[in-house]
Amino acid sequence: MANERPTGLKANKGIELLTFGTPNGWKASIYLEELKEAYGTEYTWQSINIFENIQKEPWFTALGPNGRIPVIVDHDQGGFPIQEGLAILNYLTRKYDTEHKFSFTDPFDVSRMEQWMAWQHGGLGPMQGQANHFNRAAKERIPWGMQRYVGETERLVGILDNHLKDKEYLVGNKYSIADISSFGWIHILLFAHVDLDAFPNVKAWWERILARPAVQRGVLVPAKSEISNDIYLQRLADDKEFAEKEKILREQIAAAKEKYGYKFASP
Amino acid sequence: MANERPTGLKANKGIELLTFGTPNGWKASIYLEELKEAYGTEYTWQSINIFENIQKEPWFTALGPNGRIPVIVDHDQGGFPIQEGLAILNYLTRKYDTEHKFSFTDPFDVSRMEQWMAWQHGGLGPMQGQANHFNRAAKERIPWGMQRYVGETERLVGILDNHLKDKEYLVGNKYSIADISSFGWIHILLFAHVDLDAFPNVKAWWERILARPAVQRGVLVPAKSEISNDIYLQRLADDKEFAEKEKILREQIAAAKEKYGYKFASP
Repeated sequence: MANERPTGLKANKGIELLTFGTPNGWKASIYLEELKEAYGTEYTWQSINIFENIQKEPWFTALGPNGRIPVIVDHDQGGFPIQEGLAILNYLTRKYDTEHKFSFTDPFDVSRMEQWMAWQHGGLGPMQGQANHFNRAAKERIPWGMQRYVGETERLVGILDNHLKDKEYLVGNKYSIADISSFGWIHILLFAHVDLDAFPNVKAWWERILARPAVQRGVLVPAKSEISNDIYLQRLADDKEFAEKEKILREQIAAAKEKYGYKFASP
Repeated sequence: MANERPTGLKANKGIELLTFGTPNGWKASIYLEELKEAYGTEYTWQSINIFENIQKEPWFTALGPNGRIPVIVDHDQGGFPIQEGLAILNYLTRKYDTEHKFSFTDPFDVSRMEQWMAWQHGGLGPMQGQANHFNRAAKERIPWGMQRYVGETERLVGILDNHLKDKEYLVGNKYSIADISSFGWIHILLFAHVDLDAFPNVKAWWERILARPAVQRGVLVPAKSEISNDIYLQRLADDKEFAEKEKILREQIAAAKEKYGYKFASP
């Protein structure tokens, strides 16, 4: 029944998550797994296959009018719906993170957390998303678009790398929803043809977060990703045809950067 | 002295705003004007000319590591810096909006406010920004990019228009920072070649907000915009050469939509 096309909500208590295996979806599923481990809270999820446009159907847009995943519904609060990853992380924090295990009480750390979450939500996420679009989804390979968005992603990851110098986590030396917010995008960074090894502080931070059992469970909701860094490297090693296509794409991106004189700089 | 290139902070108490006349800058300047009118609070500002890359200089990135405006500094709190429009609106709310004149106490309205602010910060802002880039700044006119981002902006403004049906403001029938967040982007919508008249609820909402004296003062910080809807229409009427260039751009965008079979739909 897992492959049945969802047509509405299925739970009647707690949080119900409508999601798909993307960096934005993982924000919600990773945090719900962390909250489950830390506080014993339960949640329900349904897979919303975005390639089938389930997120554009009326029952879904009645909950998330923007027509995007993730959306959560709080059945304990009359079915109150929340869209946008940043707003979901905040809502779940107020509802469940009563001991501030993943958030802060110090007002400066609260603001720092907001700043990094906004930075991800308005910068890293949208720009890396456009890189994937121009590298892979656009009907034509357009050099200007490829170098613009791969370059902007590199700039942003460079910002993160500078910030993480001598730091284990983004805010207050504590793993928090600020880290959860950006983690998923770094988890598929190689797929955007950005070199994770060029950003050693980000790479160490990514590995540190990925070592958490709740994170490992969270990225399996609703199913194992085919584009996370580990799987991507495995496919390059195992699948010669895939590796050859990726090599061509990498050369196209390099040529696009060369053509327009792109130079990496952060900021 | 107004044209002198800033090289550091200049105030020593209250909020100092580092900004430029863009939709993201206006979030901060409009809200600071509203707070001044409602509570009598004062603030200082400096113009950061983004075309001269002042926002990339070390003294600036020490405050806002992402190298973007707006940034505020709270001199009453040891010079604590805040980057990202969304985080600035939240910080100013906690500091000054003690009577919740522009924010909410009801937990559902708080979440609704967060959702619309995140929607702007991760959607309307980045996508309309890319539309302006492909329409005007990119070294080539690229039909795929033009139709993609003008189209996505139309989709997003359509979401806003649906939501504002029978509503005066985005959340709780009250003007709030959720409205301030999106207002600036609608204030330059015509410049993106999106037809404001096609979205009558958004147009009425934009006019309603623009009627506020604090908003009219806020969009003059640091200087009058040359691309706001009213000025844009005036230039079309007054400047034949400008009008001719805009007509050509409009036709290029229409041709790009035609080429790729773009159809407007929200969501």
